[in-house]
Amino acid sequence: MDPINIKKLAEALNLSTSTVSRAFRNNNDINKATKERILARARELGYQPNHYASNLRERKSRTIAVIVPELANNFFLQVINGLEQVASAKGYHILIYLTGNDYEKEISFINHLSNGRVDGIMMSVSGETASEHNYLHKLRDKNIPLVFFDRIYEDIDVPKVTTDDYESAFQATEHLIQAGCRDIAFLVINKNLSIGKKRLQGYQDALRQHGLPYREELVVDCHHDHDPNLEILRQALPALKPDGLFAAVERLAIAAYFVCQEQGIQIPGQLKIISFSSLEIAPLLNPSLSTITQPAFEMGIQAATLLFEAIDGGGQEVKTGQIVLKSELVPRQSSSRAGN
Amino acid sequence: MDPINIKKLAEALNLSTSTVSRAFRNNNDINKATKERILARARELGYQPNHYASNLRERKSRTIAVIVPELANNFFLQVINGLEQVASAKGYHILIYLTGNDYEKEISFINHLSNGRVDGIMMSVSGETASEHNYLHKLRDKNIPLVFFDRIYEDIDVPKVTTDDYESAFQATEHLIQAGCRDIAFLVINKNLSIGKKRLQGYQDALRQHGLPYREELVVDCHHDHDPNLEILRQALPALKPDGLFAAVERLAIAAYFVCQEQGIQIPGQLKIISFSSLEIAPLLNPSLSTITQPAFEMGIQAATLLFEAIDGGGQEVKTGQIVLKSELVPRQSSSRAGN
Repeated sequence: MDPINIKKLAEALNLSTSTVSRAFRNNNDINKATKERILARARELGYQPNHYASNLRERKSRTIAVIVPELANNFFLQVINGLEQVASAKGYHILIYLTGNDYEKEISFINHLSNGRVDGIMMSVSGETASEHNYLHKLRDKNIPLVFFDRIYEDIDVPKVTTDDYESAFQATEHLIQAGCRDIAFLVINKNLSIGKKRLQGYQDALRQHGLPYREELVVDCHHDHDPNLEILRQALPALKPDGLFAAVERLAIAAYFVCQEQGIQIPGQLKIISFSSLEIAPLLNPSLSTITQPAFEMGIQAATLLFEAIDGGGQEVKTGQIVLKSELVPRQSSSRAGN
Repeated sequence: MDPINIKKLAEALNLSTSTVSRAFRNNNDINKATKERILARARELGYQPNHYASNLRERKSRTIAVIVPELANNFFLQVINGLEQVASAKGYHILIYLTGNDYEKEISFINHLSNGRVDGIMMSVSGETASEHNYLHKLRDKNIPLVFFDRIYEDIDVPKVTTDDYESAFQATEHLIQAGCRDIAFLVINKNLSIGKKRLQGYQDALRQHGLPYREELVVDCHHDHDPNLEILRQALPALKPDGLFAAVERLAIAAYFVCQEQGIQIPGQLKIISFSSLEIAPLLNPSLSTITQPAFEMGIQAATLLFEAIDGGGQEVKTGQIVLKSELVPRQSSSRAGN
C-alpha cells in the first residue's frame, strides 16, 4: 500500500487538503469538531504531517539572514558555506548582511529584520559590548529565532556557537615559547569583544605559566583596515623588536608579512609568526603561515542546525546554551624553530 | 540666511511637512489647489526638493540586492565593497545573494526579488548562456532596475559594467610568450560564458599573432571546486608538460601552485604562471603571483552609480549600454624570465 499522505487523508475524510492542513497547524480558523475528526482519522491511518512542508506554508519568507562584520575574512565565508549547505537542503535562501563592524548598522539591520522579512537570523556581532543590546529583544517578541556564532554578546540569552578561543590562544602562545620566543607581541583588533578578551587571557596565562612577564606594550591594538595596520606595524616592529608574533585576526598576520618584507625582517629567523586564520592558501605563503584554524564550515553547520530547530519548533522550547568547537593548531614554516 | 528646507517651507505655508512632501511626489492624495499653492511658494523661496530624500520615502525597502556566483573570490568581495560605499552614502542597505553558479538558483532569486523586496539589483550572472533569460523581464515589468557587472548576458538590454577581457587575456598570453613560453596552457571554468569566450579568444589571437599554433588540448576545462581542480591538474600537468600557464580564474592558479608543490614543478623555472586575480596577497605567495588585476572596487562603484541613476530616475530614461574598465597586468616572480 502506498504511504498515506495529506491528499489521501483529505479524500478519506471528504474534506479539502487545506482544511486538513489547518488541523495540523493549530489554526483557530477551523471548527473544533472537524479538527478532532481529522486528527482521529490521521491517527487511525498512521498519517504524520510533514513538519517541514507544513512549516513552509506557515512561514512566508523561506529566508535566513546571516549578519557578519565583514567578508574579507575567509572564516566568515566558510561559516556561510556551512549555513548555505543546511539552508539549501531545507529549501531556504540565505541573505547576507554586512555590518562593516559598525554597531549602528547592526541595530539598523535588526530593526529592518524584525518586520518578519526572514524566518531566522544567524549573527556574529559587530562589537560594542559596553553598550546595551535591548534592540535584540524585538526579535524574541516577534518570534524570530536568533543564533550567535563566533562573536557573541554574553548578556543575550540565545543559542551560541563559538570555538575554544582561550585554549587555542594559550596553545599558540605556548607554541611560540617552545620555538624559542621570549618577546611575543599580540596583535588584536577589539580587546573589548568577548572573543578578544578570551584570546588575550590565553596569551597572558601562557606567558605566566612559562615564567615570562606580561608586558602591556607588546599588546598592539590594530585596525579593521589594511593601510592603518601597515602604519601601526611599521612603527611597532622596530620599536618593540619582538621575536614572536601572535595575530588574533588573519589580516594582522598578512599586514605583518608585508611589513617584514618591506623592512627585511626574516620570518621565522628574526620573527616567528602564528595567526588565527582560515586562509586556505596559508601553505603557499612565503614562508608558509602557521595557523590556529577554527572549524568554520562546521560552525556554520552547527549554528544553522540550531537555528532550524528553533524555526521548526515554532519558538517553543528553544534551546539556549553554548556549543564550543575545537580549533586546530597547524604549525608551518613561519614559526619553525629551525629558522632560528 | 539659512538655506530653505522642507520644514521651513511647511512653516511658511502653515502646513505639515508630510503634506508639503506629498506635493513633490505626485501623490493623488493631495488637493490640487493646495499642491499648486505649495509648488508656487517653493519656487518663490527657491526650495528644491531633495530628490534623494523624497525618493527614500517613496521606495519602501531602501535595499539593493547584489547577486553573485560566489564569494570565495576576492574579485566579488571588492566589487561589493565598491557597491557598499555608494549604497551607504545613499542610506541604502545591501543584501547579498549567492547563486553558487547555479542557474536555477538565479531564476529563483529573481522571482523572489520581483515582488519588490528591493529597489534595485546588481548581478554577475551564474552562467547558462545557451538558455533563455526571459525571467529577467519580470524585473522590467515591475520597474526594478537591474545592472550587470563582470559576467553578463548579452541578450538582456540593461546597463553593463565589464572589463577588457579580450585585451587583457591577449596581453597575459603575450607576456608569457615574451618570457619564453611556447606551450601555454589556458585554464578556464566556463568557456560558454561571454567572459570565458572573450578570454579564450584573446589567448588564441595572441598565440596566432606570435606564430604559435593553437592546440585545443592545452585548453583545460576546470571546475568551480578546489578538489576536482587538483585532480584535473594532477593529470594535466604531467601529460601536457606546459611551460606556461594562464589561469582565467584566480582559484585555478592557486590549484596549480598546490599541484606544482606536490609534483616538485618549479615556478617559474619549469612553469611560468599568470592569472586573472584580485588576490591582495599575491605578492606574498611563494613565488609571488603575476596577475591581471581587474579594477573590482571601481567596477562596484560604477555599477552602483548606474543602478542609483536608474532608481532615482524612477525607471525613466534608463541608460543601457556598456562601460568597459581596463585591467592591469602586474608581472611578478611567477612569470619572470630570470627563472628560466
